[in-house]
Amino acid sequence: MLWEKQYQLLAQVLADKGIDIERVKDKLKKQVIELPSWAVGNSGTRYGTFREEGAAITVWDRIDDCAEIQRVVGICPVMATHVLWDVTEDGKYEPVREYAAEKGLRIGTVHPNTFMGQQFKFGSICNPFADVRRSTIEHFKDCVRIARELGSKTLGVWLADGTNYPGQDKLRERKHRLFAGLKELYDAMDADMTLLLEYKPFEPAFYTTDVMDWGMSYLMCTKMGDRAKVLVDLGHHLLGVNVEQIIAVLLDEGKMGGFHFNNHKYADDDLMVGSIDPYGLFLIFDQIIEAEEDNVDVDIVYMLDQSHNIEPSIEGIIQSVMNVQKAYARALLVDRRKLQEARQNGDVILANRTLMEAFEIDVNPLLNQVRVEMGIEPDPLLNYRRSGYAEKIARERKNKGANTLGG
Amino acid sequence: MLWEKQYQLLAQVLADKGIDIERVKDKLKKQVIELPSWAVGNSGTRYGTFREEGAAITVWDRIDDCAEIQRVVGICPVMATHVLWDVTEDGKYEPVREYAAEKGLRIGTVHPNTFMGQQFKFGSICNPFADVRRSTIEHFKDCVRIARELGSKTLGVWLADGTNYPGQDKLRERKHRLFAGLKELYDAMDADMTLLLEYKPFEPAFYTTDVMDWGMSYLMCTKMGDRAKVLVDLGHHLLGVNVEQIIAVLLDEGKMGGFHFNNHKYADDDLMVGSIDPYGLFLIFDQIIEAEEDNVDVDIVYMLDQSHNIEPSIEGIIQSVMNVQKAYARALLVDRRKLQEARQNGDVILANRTLMEAFEIDVNPLLNQVRVEMGIEPDPLLNYRRSGYAEKIARERKNKGANTLGG
Amino acid sequence: MLWEKQYQLLAQVLADKGIDIERVKDKLKKQVIELPSWAVGNSGTRYGTFREEGAAITVWDRIDDCAEIQRVVGICPVMATHVLWDVTEDGKYEPVREYAAEKGLRIGTVHPNTFMGQQFKFGSICNPFADVRRSTIEHFKDCVRIARELGSKTLGVWLADGTNYPGQDKLRERKHRLFAGLKELYDAMDADMTLLLEYKPFEPAFYTTDVMDWGMSYLMCTKMGDRAKVLVDLGHHLLGVNVEQIIAVLLDEGKMGGFHFNNHKYADDDLMVGSIDPYGLFLIFDQIIEAEEDNVDVDIVYMLDQSHNIEPSIEGIIQSVMNVQKAYARALLVDRRKLQEARQNGDVILANRTLMEAFEIDVNPLLNQVRVEMGIEPDPLLNYRRSGYAEKIARERKNKGANTLGG
Amino acid sequence: MLWEKQYQLLAQVLADKGIDIERVKDKLKKQVIELPSWAVGNSGTRYGTFREEGAAITVWDRIDDCAEIQRVVGICPVMATHVLWDVTEDGKYEPVREYAAEKGLRIGTVHPNTFMGQQFKFGSICNPFADVRRSTIEHFKDCVRIARELGSKTLGVWLADGTNYPGQDKLRERKHRLFAGLKELYDAMDADMTLLLEYKPFEPAFYTTDVMDWGMSYLMCTKMGDRAKVLVDLGHHLLGVNVEQIIAVLLDEGKMGGFHFNNHKYADDDLMVGSIDPYGLFLIFDQIIEAEEDNVDVDIVYMLDQSHNIEPSIEGIIQSVMNVQKAYARALLVDRRKLQEARQNGDVILANRTLMEAFEIDVNPLLNQVRVEMGIEPDPLLNYRRSGYAEKIARERKNKGANTLGG
Repeated sequence: MLWEKQYQLLAQVLADKGIDIERVKDKLKKQVIELPSWAVGNSGTRYGTFREEGAAITVWDRIDDCAEIQRVVGICPVMATHVLWDVTEDGKYEPVREYAAEKGLRIGTVHPNTFMGQQFKFGSICNPFADVRRSTIEHFKDCVRIARELGSKTLGVWLADGTNYPGQDKLRERKHRLFAGLKELYDAMDADMTLLLEYKPFEPAFYTTDVMDWGMSYLMCTKMGDRAKVLVDLGHHLLGVNVEQIIAVLLDEGKMGGFHFNNHKYADDDLMVGSIDPYGLFLIFDQIIEAEEDNVDVDIVYMLDQSHNIEPSIEGIIQSVMNVQKAYARALLVDRRKLQEARQNGDVILANRTLMEAFEIDVNPLLNQVRVEMGIEPDPLLNYRRSGYAEKIARERKNKGANTLGG
Repeated sequence: MLWEKQYQLLAQVLADKGIDIERVKDKLKKQVIELPSWAVGNSGTRYGTFREEGAAITVWDRIDDCAEIQRVVGICPVMATHVLWDVTEDGKYEPVREYAAEKGLRIGTVHPNTFMGQQFKFGSICNPFADVRRSTIEHFKDCVRIARELGSKTLGVWLADGTNYPGQDKLRERKHRLFAGLKELYDAMDADMTLLLEYKPFEPAFYTTDVMDWGMSYLMCTKMGDRAKVLVDLGHHLLGVNVEQIIAVLLDEGKMGGFHFNNHKYADDDLMVGSIDPYGLFLIFDQIIEAEEDNVDVDIVYMLDQSHNIEPSIEGIIQSVMNVQKAYARALLVDRRKLQEARQNGDVILANRTLMEAFEIDVNPLLNQVRVEMGIEPDPLLNYRRSGYAEKIARERKNKGANTLGG
Repeated sequence: MLWEKQYQLLAQVLADKGIDIERVKDKLKKQVIELPSWAVGNSGTRYGTFREEGAAITVWDRIDDCAEIQRVVGICPVMATHVLWDVTEDGKYEPVREYAAEKGLRIGTVHPNTFMGQQFKFGSICNPFADVRRSTIEHFKDCVRIARELGSKTLGVWLADGTNYPGQDKLRERKHRLFAGLKELYDAMDADMTLLLEYKPFEPAFYTTDVMDWGMSYLMCTKMGDRAKVLVDLGHHLLGVNVEQIIAVLLDEGKMGGFHFNNHKYADDDLMVGSIDPYGLFLIFDQIIEAEEDNVDVDIVYMLDQSHNIEPSIEGIIQSVMNVQKAYARALLVDRRKLQEARQNGDVILANRTLMEAFEIDVNPLLNQVRVEMGIEPDPLLNYRRSGYAEKIARERKNKGANTLGG
Repeated sequence: MLWEKQYQLLAQVLADKGIDIERVKDKLKKQVIELPSWAVGNSGTRYGTFREEGAAITVWDRIDDCAEIQRVVGICPVMATHVLWDVTEDGKYEPVREYAAEKGLRIGTVHPNTFMGQQFKFGSICNPFADVRRSTIEHFKDCVRIARELGSKTLGVWLADGTNYPGQDKLRERKHRLFAGLKELYDAMDADMTLLLEYKPFEPAFYTTDVMDWGMSYLMCTKMGDRAKVLVDLGHHLLGVNVEQIIAVLLDEGKMGGFHFNNHKYADDDLMVGSIDPYGLFLIFDQIIEAEEDNVDVDIVYMLDQSHNIEPSIEGIIQSVMNVQKAYARALLVDRRKLQEARQNGDVILANRTLMEAFEIDVNPLLNQVRVEMGIEPDPLLNYRRSGYAEKIARERKNKGANTLGG
């Protein structure tokens, strides 16, 4: 195969730079990305949802689909869950864990739900009405128990809380309620559990969002304690925000907890990660690897969180996993010695070019090789397509999910 | 009443500036805003919908609600319609028109639907598959017939068409399909009908939108002909766009066709118009009135298009109508002689201050007076609240709309 | 005068709401805004500077101009200074303080300079080269001495530090250098001095800025200590950022230190405060007054920081001061009892309307009355224009400032 | 050399896809990018300029520098000029043309100047004062003569015109003045000359800019005539604008006239093209090549227009040229047959992946080969660095440019 020859040449090129390709491959094999159970079902926009024939309906479907994805990509043995959906019909979680284990998956980050239900009109733990805050906190505590049952050590908290109009609520009071609610969850967690607090500038709230940016998440996490860290969803930034710089700051503060990967061009578009700005994704991984090389303690949970509105979900997820791998691989190939030297000389041009050179390397042959060494086929997408899995689920599931688009 | 005294003083202040308050009141009485039939029902975000107890379910509900709004505001005797919803169960439109007329309303802009239906996954008239384009065009032609039946002379076209990923479709071909489809609609219209073409930068498509900005709408309208004009939805602009300048350009080119009023802070938030940037709304009306004073032929359809996610829809619409009235009233009070003089002197400070002075006038007493002279109560919101209408519809409708929020 | 009658009516309207106009006037009289010495000189864009004939050249000119502004506005007895410019030719600061005092002004916030000088190409305290960091810190310490000599208790720090290209420098190291430098300044300050740390997303650096947002400034201030607080420049936000929410958070954390007022539509436009988004300015003051009413300890330094590119600087500053007064006055008139009640009822519409009602009050008659009671003329701009001051300085100064525009 | 082996393998890979690498290399050799004479001098921000020791001072310096760049890159035999600067001290242009020719360069796009001079405070051809409009138009006509003398067939017009405050000027009148002024220039041009009209959303004007977006430039060009086309400066877009879609529209309308290449993350940052969003640059070239493959008449002038604030200008330009080459090369390698097939199948995933595959190819070996075949060294930057040119000009020029940074 031509790619094998390309891989051989790449190995030589890297060796000349003092980069050990075996070490790089080792890191690539150990990379882990959590698959979001919710993404294999149908998803859409406020204008409606385009149904996929084989979209997952039950929790068993979701596990099956994640297992199929893991079969072809090999670095996703973990399924992130959403508590409302990933449960048996009679409210049990252990069977979920067991079925996942059977399929080769463990359960990753557990996500409480604070937006599905009429009571959340004015928010969950920031709600001006005490009963809603109280019931949300009960739900939070329940999630700790669920995490235990699922064998998970991580809670991923996104709050849809906010206001739509100036004057609607007192912002400082909302902040107090926010902290009070989070603290109760934090204190209820087991000593080896971690809370990841997500931020988002807007949507579904359109005037204020209670945890609106990294600064607010950082502030809350700092007040909670060491096991509270920031969860960065790539699409949850206003245009222009330098995300890789935020990562650098959080890494340096020991508060970089996890990612929800996706890509956006406008708002929270939830497109496939790497599909709009592959260089930006590379720059994020560059910060992470640079920190690791500097012996910063890096302990990050990587998840996808995307909305596959028009592409088949499973294929979209496979492509996304591959995009993350490529960004990671490129960042591993940065000639850091040369980069450091250029920086020390104030040589802006060479420093920038050195980073860009790594990004410009075609890492597909390298990733093919990694997959082959892991015992899977080089091309996960074609592997999946050839498997007949898509046809099988389309046939079997006879998707009866809600049709919010009329026709 | 104190406001009556304030009104009297205002009249004197204006007289000193040479502004005839009777002429102003006359204009305010003649203002017309179309009520969007779809906004009195439930609406939400992709995360779900918070149900209102009395939300309109049937077309008759919608007409009743619009009539109630018109009762208290007095300047909204027109209901804009959406063809899929504002129809009898057996597909008839004349009964809709008749019931509206009975309730004192005529039917305004007719909106085709090009997004509800599984076939629209890749767009409507820009769809790569010819059959979808063909059926969309049939729907367009149907809308012309429907407009006739409803007694409307205006078609308002918003296309959800676009792509989500680089490479997905050929952009130039999509543009050709776009024009071909629009042209068929334009040619099918009666000689006294007008086509309003809306633009939007993103959502539901997240990489390209086929009619993405005023330039594209203008380009298409120019190619179609004189009776095709641009529809400006205030929320359909990227952050930073100077909307009032676009209005000025379109007015000058004879292509300013209509508004969808709302307000946004982030994306297409669909908040109540004037709730986030009341000065910006004033600046838009300032352009319109300045054009009228310069004898530009101004023929604009004014509509609301908002999503009342957390506030009661009818109240939200009433407040929005009042916000539009206030912006319009303030713009009518600009001392244009003084403004012109400042401009001629290159006196930036005085020109800016002159505009701001009009904006700073409290026009509530003036609008109260206008309403009293129109035979309605000064405060539409309190009028509505006292009427018991909200309680009545909550009781009667037993809202059974889809509950997409679980609880 | 008609405005006197309007004022009388307003007093009645407010009395009906339980708002004591005497208390409001008292607050308005006590408001203090620092005048930026640098703004009365010429300023421009990177494309050049349009010279004003009477633009201040010397420090004495700047003091004279500020004193003239204070004469007509009455609430600006303080001049913020920039250390490089507000000094005698032989490097003395006491004469500056004395001349200012003679003119009725005291010296406010002292601003170090970390961008004028070839050495700052890669930053000041974040510079990769130790000698530049060292000399910047010396300059910082010098500023403490200067502040003492000028009788000022506040240092306002804006760092132009950042990078222009990915890879250029190690971001975590820059953060370490940042904190090290700030800490040295903080530790060098007298026990009654306060450090205000400004943030800015971009410009002059275009890839990363070391203190890029409120979160980073907050983080640094928290690490420094209680007397380090955040300085909010209104124009230093990416589009979409909710500034009033940041104010609320900082007030709640005791970290809201000061403002640089201006207004922007696009980037750091440095337009007159209140000229683009007067409602946004009101919403900021609403947060401050709400905090005061809730007995939050509010201790904020208010400054203007604008660039009067095309309007006469002194006039631009006068108009800006008036715009700030109007926003503050409106926020003082919010019916907080009614607002609280609406919030408690979950009445979004009424809560929003209550806030908007205060904004819609024409406060010009009230401010006229305040000025008359303070012994100054009701209209500061006309007062200034009639004084002949502009003609006098144009005649006397024979502006010989650098002409960067060729012609 | 390893790259030669990589090139050989790439040739095979492409051959398998049916892509003829000889044809690709031929296109790459024929690519032409105009060098901006103004970019080899010092440039900065409104906060000051960091001087380069060897920055060009005279027109002869600028020609020398461009010739040196062309020596190492080989695809830039044209120098775009700015009329105010690229002239002899006694106002002659022919010697400029001759010296350039001697150095192997011809003169490309001629840029009038409408912002340097005190008279332009309120704009040039949109200025409210007729004398400024008149003198600007005289300057325009002069530029036609100058273009003739320089042997150029293209005029590149950027207008700094706009307003800073609401109310400052009448926007419709400014539009009329705009067209009147442009039309005079258009009519004064020779029959074989082309006018390229640039747009920009803001800066130096901060409220309105008279030619603010592609729509306005398109509108003006359409009214002028066939030889007026749109000039797209990559940095002149609000965040979120889809630039490649604008390119597609303009190509389809025959109005795509030229580029000013650079890259931005925030505003008009003027960074090196391809340094922030290399994928976006690729997507633009993809549109161009797709149009060429579809036999659209593509006639585009490519220019750099950047501000090298902290990196050495010549090196920054060399790196930028290489970045453009890479984007162009990658776009030439798109497997268009496969792409078309995926589109026809509605296969979003494969269509997107096909585009991405071309972007992921490491084209450096290909470009090395192209350069070798053109008789130049594979690495232009190292070639330049080894030449000693930088040291030579630093020594000779004794840069005496204005030091606007104090130190």
